[in-house]
Amino acid sequence: MRAVDVIRKKRDRQELTRDEIEAFARAAADGSWPDYQLSALLMAIFLNGMTADETAALTAAMANSGTRYRWDDVPGPKVDKHSTGGVGDKTSLVLAPLAAACGVIVPMMSGRGLGHTGGTLDKLESIPGFRVGLDREELRRQLQAIGVGMIGQSANVAPADRKLYALRDVTGAVESIPLITASILSKKLAEGIDGLVMDVKAGRGAFMKTPEDAKTLAESIVRVGNTNGVRTEALITSMDVPLGRAVGNAVEVIECLETLKGRGPKDVEDLSVTLAARMVRLAGLAKTDAEAESQVRRALASGAGLEKFRQIIERQGGDSRIVDDYAGFARAPRRATIAADRNGFVTDLNAEGIGIGASILGAGRARAEDRADHAVGVVVRTLVGQEVKSGEAVLEVHYRDSTALAAALPLLRGAIRVGDAPPTMRELILGEVR
Amino acid sequence: MRAVDVIRKKRDRQELTRDEIEAFARAAADGSWPDYQLSALLMAIFLNGMTADETAALTAAMANSGTRYRWDDVPGPKVDKHSTGGVGDKTSLVLAPLAAACGVIVPMMSGRGLGHTGGTLDKLESIPGFRVGLDREELRRQLQAIGVGMIGQSANVAPADRKLYALRDVTGAVESIPLITASILSKKLAEGIDGLVMDVKAGRGAFMKTPEDAKTLAESIVRVGNTNGVRTEALITSMDVPLGRAVGNAVEVIECLETLKGRGPKDVEDLSVTLAARMVRLAGLAKTDAEAESQVRRALASGAGLEKFRQIIERQGGDSRIVDDYAGFARAPRRATIAADRNGFVTDLNAEGIGIGASILGAGRARAEDRADHAVGVVVRTLVGQEVKSGEAVLEVHYRDSTALAAALPLLRGAIRVGDAPPTMRELILGEVR
Repeated sequence: MRAVDVIRKKRDRQELTRDEIEAFARAAADGSWPDYQLSALLMAIFLNGMTADETAALTAAMANSGTRYRWDDVPGPKVDKHSTGGVGDKTSLVLAPLAAACGVIVPMMSGRGLGHTGGTLDKLESIPGFRVGLDREELRRQLQAIGVGMIGQSANVAPADRKLYALRDVTGAVESIPLITASILSKKLAEGIDGLVMDVKAGRGAFMKTPEDAKTLAESIVRVGNTNGVRTEALITSMDVPLGRAVGNAVEVIECLETLKGRGPKDVEDLSVTLAARMVRLAGLAKTDAEAESQVRRALASGAGLEKFRQIIERQGGDSRIVDDYAGFARAPRRATIAADRNGFVTDLNAEGIGIGASILGAGRARAEDRADHAVGVVVRTLVGQEVKSGEAVLEVHYRDSTALAAALPLLRGAIRVGDAPPTMRELILGEVR
Repeated sequence: MRAVDVIRKKRDRQELTRDEIEAFARAAADGSWPDYQLSALLMAIFLNGMTADETAALTAAMANSGTRYRWDDVPGPKVDKHSTGGVGDKTSLVLAPLAAACGVIVPMMSGRGLGHTGGTLDKLESIPGFRVGLDREELRRQLQAIGVGMIGQSANVAPADRKLYALRDVTGAVESIPLITASILSKKLAEGIDGLVMDVKAGRGAFMKTPEDAKTLAESIVRVGNTNGVRTEALITSMDVPLGRAVGNAVEVIECLETLKGRGPKDVEDLSVTLAARMVRLAGLAKTDAEAESQVRRALASGAGLEKFRQIIERQGGDSRIVDDYAGFARAPRRATIAADRNGFVTDLNAEGIGIGASILGAGRARAEDRADHAVGVVVRTLVGQEVKSGEAVLEVHYRDSTALAAALPLLRGAIRVGDAPPTMRELILGEVR
């Protein structure tokens, strides 16, 4: 099979065969097609699309391009959750312990954040000593012992995706539903899970800007996940304002601990509980959403979720004293507040502006090889809908470097709107695909 | 300017600016964009097209990526002819001397043939001693002395096209009107000509299979040539059957000499005269096509064209005795004939089958680095429309190697059709764009 013939077929809007798609994924992983042929095919796929069958075949082929975990020796249903990324999106740290406390096996493998949305691994690494680099044996033993592990994807997981994503990034071929579907699901398929709950975010702070686009992606992921033998459901959730109050790394982990203690922001708690409940039902541990949710709420109220998080920290080398004493977290040396310049109600906090601002402070990473600063971040003092007086803090900025602060301030200031009347509050959950 | 932003613009069907197009062409020539970005942009252009302005800008930028000849010190109008390639398409060797004999300055630079269509350079090199590798000074002196030179493109002509063509070839991005237009015209612009006559071939033996596609390409080339200051016209001509009787190298040069002696096949003579007359008119040496054609016919009848060809051979190091004695040409050691298997009329000679057959015999080159065999080829003994008896020769095959013959025979046999009645004869000139 010649690469040029496969490219021509897709260019001419013909459906590719499974063999052709497997050759493409294999070539991406082993370098047997040169980059210029991979990128030409990616652009042809971007512009001419893929059928559901093609997307499912590409997803499977990319998953098969590297290690595929199996957990035959870990009894119980394996279910994971994955989010398309948002600002302050910290639910993984809350729902993984909650779902595990309800009996779900959660072999969660995350990537690092890039751009203005934070990554789960950076957040976890703000816990002193926490190791995300467990090998397969370590993770297996941990799943057997406590039912949950939160680790980074090894380089052997879906190497075809690694290659293709890097090429898409530099050739303008990122925003393609089939390619996004295959990229996300190939890595999840490789985890060896039975079920997957997707959180597809929509809004200014998300990759998909509109609920319609998010729904299209959610439908594609659900269809392709199920075709490949993973029971998959998706929630479509709003990402116009940050989730919760904290945007950063240590500040977000603290907010998760507060949530597991029953004192977290309502949106973080509600979304984490809803997603965890979907995991519990997909795992077959409850028949209905209501039944599953009451199990999760019990795990939250009893402190079982918090205890599970403590176990995760201990098993993965972290200092679990931070669960009770936040002084163990790195703290930014300086703080600044951004105040309201008039009396009124906070009507908007633009997630994108706050996410980019936090990233400029050092919480995110512009390039994959950058290191995230765990201590810096942004904390919302006055939430959307709350009343504020002129001069009162809306945002609190935790920073290290005044040059970075100066660069972030206009974005953070520009993210705030104060008006005369309280705004119509938006729904957090915009839709669902199952 | 970032490559990825230019790719995204074209991907999203936005018009590229002149600056963006120049950056692309420059990057192709100097390697400052990696191949995977060039090929992604080529695929986006292939699928989303280019406006006339974009195509004109790309053509100019590719021409400017290398040497641009100027002939200020050669008085007279410079006009060239270019063909999109066909089987037995030998008109350059007839019309260049004829046009020059009428006073046109013809700085003809050709490429090598690839695939089943022969190249002018391979044909010229079948003349013992003939040098196609003149440098700029040598060509300048030759144009001053005899008004015409027939040479190969130097590596410095349109290096952006060289790079982009190689990438298009392996990424399925060849058959694009804007990209073909820019590829052809960038090299012609670099020749430093005032006028250009295009022979856009249509049919089974041509790159464009239908007259409609050929017309689209002709219109694009004429528009873009004129936009870039070269008076450009195009004929659309039929390429369903080979032009003339000879397909190969030495056999084609002999047919050209016969044509210049007034004894050539009617189609070769007529097309060469028509194209040469367009050159004469574009050069401003005649007011009308009729006036131009009578000048060309006079140069043919008087032997001035033949004399000009003899001068070209002498100036370029060739053995001009071959003009009068064809024994000087390399001859294939063996001949085979393909005979009619019934009485009737030859109703078809498929140019594509005969072209590929001749290429398999060694007349063409599968890869650019292959050497063409000057001696081998195919000669049509019975033309389409002529009567034939069972057992009489339709094709004569000049070959060197019996394995190659065995491989070529099925194609050559399959190219012949003999029927009960003479076929409707097709027009040679299908249309014109000026």
